[in-house]
Amino acid sequence: MSAATGTLYGLGVGPGDPELLTLKALRLLKAAPVVAYPAPDHGTSFARAIVAEYLSAEQEEIPIVVPMRVERFPAAAIYDEAAERIGARLAEGRDVAVLCEGDPFFYGSFMYLFERLASRFPTEIVPGVSSVMAASAALKRPLAARNDVLTVIPGPLDDAALGARIEAAEAFAIMKLGRHFPRVKALIETLGLLDRCAYAERVSLPEERLLPLRDVSGDVPYFSMILGYRGTEPAIRGAAFDQEPAR
Amino acid sequence: MSAATGTLYGLGVGPGDPELLTLKALRLLKAAPVVAYPAPDHGTSFARAIVAEYLSAEQEEIPIVVPMRVERFPAAAIYDEAAERIGARLAEGRDVAVLCEGDPFFYGSFMYLFERLASRFPTEIVPGVSSVMAASAALKRPLAARNDVLTVIPGPLDDAALGARIEAAEAFAIMKLGRHFPRVKALIETLGLLDRCAYAERVSLPEERLLPLRDVSGDVPYFSMILGYRGTEPAIRGAAFDQEPAR
Repeated sequence: MSAATGTLYGLGVGPGDPELLTLKALRLLKAAPVVAYPAPDHGTSFARAIVAEYLSAEQEEIPIVVPMRVERFPAAAIYDEAAERIGARLAEGRDVAVLCEGDPFFYGSFMYLFERLASRFPTEIVPGVSSVMAASAALKRPLAARNDVLTVIPGPLDDAALGARIEAAEAFAIMKLGRHFPRVKALIETLGLLDRCAYAERVSLPEERLLPLRDVSGDVPYFSMILGYRGTEPAIRGAAFDQEPAR
Repeated sequence: MSAATGTLYGLGVGPGDPELLTLKALRLLKAAPVVAYPAPDHGTSFARAIVAEYLSAEQEEIPIVVPMRVERFPAAAIYDEAAERIGARLAEGRDVAVLCEGDPFFYGSFMYLFERLASRFPTEIVPGVSSVMAASAALKRPLAARNDVLTVIPGPLDDAALGARIEAAEAFAIMKLGRHFPRVKALIETLGLLDRCAYAERVSLPEERLLPLRDVSGDVPYFSMILGYRGTEPAIRGAAFDQEPAR
């Protein structure tokens, strides 16, 4: 790495509300001469839309076009090509900010750029507000307390794996629902947990939807989540508890 | 709730770096006539310290004093009393912002105020950057990808529960280490996962410490965490995961 090399920034831009950007991400975003972001082949980039009001016409933009319906990798070629374009800017000494929905390292595609570029260029990751915490806030449901185990489970897992993981935790979040939703809901009903679950969709955006899981049917979007709690303690609502030391 | 009632805000202030506050939390914090926060009986409040530069002398402060070093006690009286003081301000029509380290509903004590006040006063939760995501960013280790299951486990769990939970996930974060650290590290070594784990302490603060877990011994503070990965998928782990944490 020469001193003239630019820095690669992975910027978490939060779950959707532009006001859920951190001060740090905003500062680095505004200062970056080059801004890259995932984009669908048709339509607008969600990550870019979140920060659109903070961008300026002087910034070069690099959309990383990932075809909508490609769920399974070999997306390697897409990220190889994106890394090459971004690497060229970094080599010229220009910083590049990569926009990441939610948090960059929490199920984010940024890691595919990271693994291709971080060994060659200075890299900084700015954590962001995750959709899991944003869903908990919007639903007004505490996520985990005291000694609860919290498990985050991708919806595409098969029923056996999903069920086992749900039953190994007090609190759980099931993400990436999309077309898996009806199956996941049926499984949760089988486990007797339907009334201990809530559903959140497009959290923190104007079109946010919040419902008891029991009341949700039909198709749901990819940006949706189930939050559940199966702890047996009076836990979250309890009065006497293992107190965390105050700081 | 009368129209003249104030609003209770649970503000996530992030893991420690004041710049990891969200724009929304900052706006609501500055506008709040009353600011409450957990505080130790001796020394300064960590939550307050994070936002100290944003506070003004006109704001009324309500420290919620939770005795240090007491791990188990009926804390109900403390939160009853705090809820009463905060409720009195809300009833007068004044908004109250409660500062929460990290995220309010992710192992946060805010939920004890929430359960006492949310049925009587308008309440809004502003999610924050969690220390788990901040540790992943600082360590430059992706947390979870694709269909990984991520489990967050409190360190005080006994060995059998800890081991079972670790083995039911691809990625894991062990929090609330403190005095449990030597036992947890020994367990991880027994499971053959020592070299797949990294350690982070006081993440995002100037005194942050990042180390391979193997290199950590002795006492560790409460604000410390182990991140581990036991998944078998190769993709994201090449550069990122099996590498010593970089600074």
